[in-house]
Amino acid sequence: MSAALAIEPSPAPVAVLSDAGRDLLFREARTHNGWSDRPIPEALLRELYDLTKFGPTAVNATPARFVFVTSDEGKAKLAELASGNNKAKILAAPATVIIGYDLDFMDHNAKLFPHAPTMLEGMRGTPAAQELAFRNSSLQGGYFILAARALGLDTGPMSGFDNAAVDEAFFPGRNVKSNFIVSLGYGSGENLFPRSPRLDFEDAARFA
Amino acid sequence: MSAALAIEPSPAPVAVLSDAGRDLLFREARTHNGWSDRPIPEALLRELYDLTKFGPTAVNATPARFVFVTSDEGKAKLAELASGNNKAKILAAPATVIIGYDLDFMDHNAKLFPHAPTMLEGMRGTPAAQELAFRNSSLQGGYFILAARALGLDTGPMSGFDNAAVDEAFFPGRNVKSNFIVSLGYGSGENLFPRSPRLDFEDAARFA
Repeated sequence: MSAALAIEPSPAPVAVLSDAGRDLLFREARTHNGWSDRPIPEALLRELYDLTKFGPTAVNATPARFVFVTSDEGKAKLAELASGNNKAKILAAPATVIIGYDLDFMDHNAKLFPHAPTMLEGMRGTPAAQELAFRNSSLQGGYFILAARALGLDTGPMSGFDNAAVDEAFFPGRNVKSNFIVSLGYGSGENLFPRSPRLDFEDAARFA
Repeated sequence: MSAALAIEPSPAPVAVLSDAGRDLLFREARTHNGWSDRPIPEALLRELYDLTKFGPTAVNATPARFVFVTSDEGKAKLAELASGNNKAKILAAPATVIIGYDLDFMDHNAKLFPHAPTMLEGMRGTPAAQELAFRNSSLQGGYFILAARALGLDTGPMSGFDNAAVDEAFFPGRNVKSNFIVSLGYGSGENLFPRSPRLDFEDAARFA
């Protein structure tokens, strides 16, 4: 083989996110605890859902359900059911979303997965349904947080609240369980912790 | 008040992701089942970890653990433990990552959350630790899928495999449980389903 023939062609270029985009979503983004008084237009929250919904889930079940708590009454109700420090954060943020998971996700099987419209029916009421819904609504929570950042919003995810009481107050009469909550807004930078360390590759990952 | 004074100032511009970036990560991205033979450099998989690790988790616990299965031997072992259609997908993809969750995540509490270095210790061995690890490793799975797309990779997430056998084979002697797996590579477009529908805002979300 001649030297010329041994030269490998360069692989075709693929689309990648810019450095600025990687900074915005991952490297420079921070969890916020203090909020400016700038409001979030309702249209932006709808746009946030419209990005989040495209993230992949098992059998396209998309079990996450979202309650955007934006009214004073809603915030007061949610804050009352949240623990310690979370109360003030909820009251201060322009919006806090409750991300829940619908254990009756199979009701939408025919619409969401038309080539196997009854595939999920056998899971109804089983531990496997709970596991699928919890895993995939959490995945969707990850998409949601990064989609919010893509739209210029800051996020403050939280877990400390009375789940059963939140389910009763915000998903009444439905087979929906709360997973976690996320405050949304434009961070003031107030009370921002210094960025905490992350695990090195070798402590969290390996090749096999 | 004069009309001039009543004019609200425009809000300061905030950084947002470009339309092309939103398409790349959310709107145009697809789950892939067929792969070109283009390899993934090891450096790119390390970069993928280095983006993923910045996504927020509860108490910065970052419980997800990643095994990048790239060797022929590793792929054969994983494929053997996977169900039906997933076997061939694992063998065909240049890499499949096993995303697990470390139930001993509190071992890293002092490093990862230095201002409250023993905060998580009381959870060791409890159902709350299982819940935190499963929720947050799934969240990290969401960050991982979008980070892969940010780097130009296509993804194929899967759940069908023998979890206990995978834990034994890939996390031996550790308190780590497999969550789900994701094939990575450059999609060939082969066997690509048409995009399935998503739920409208009104079916998955509301304001309160």
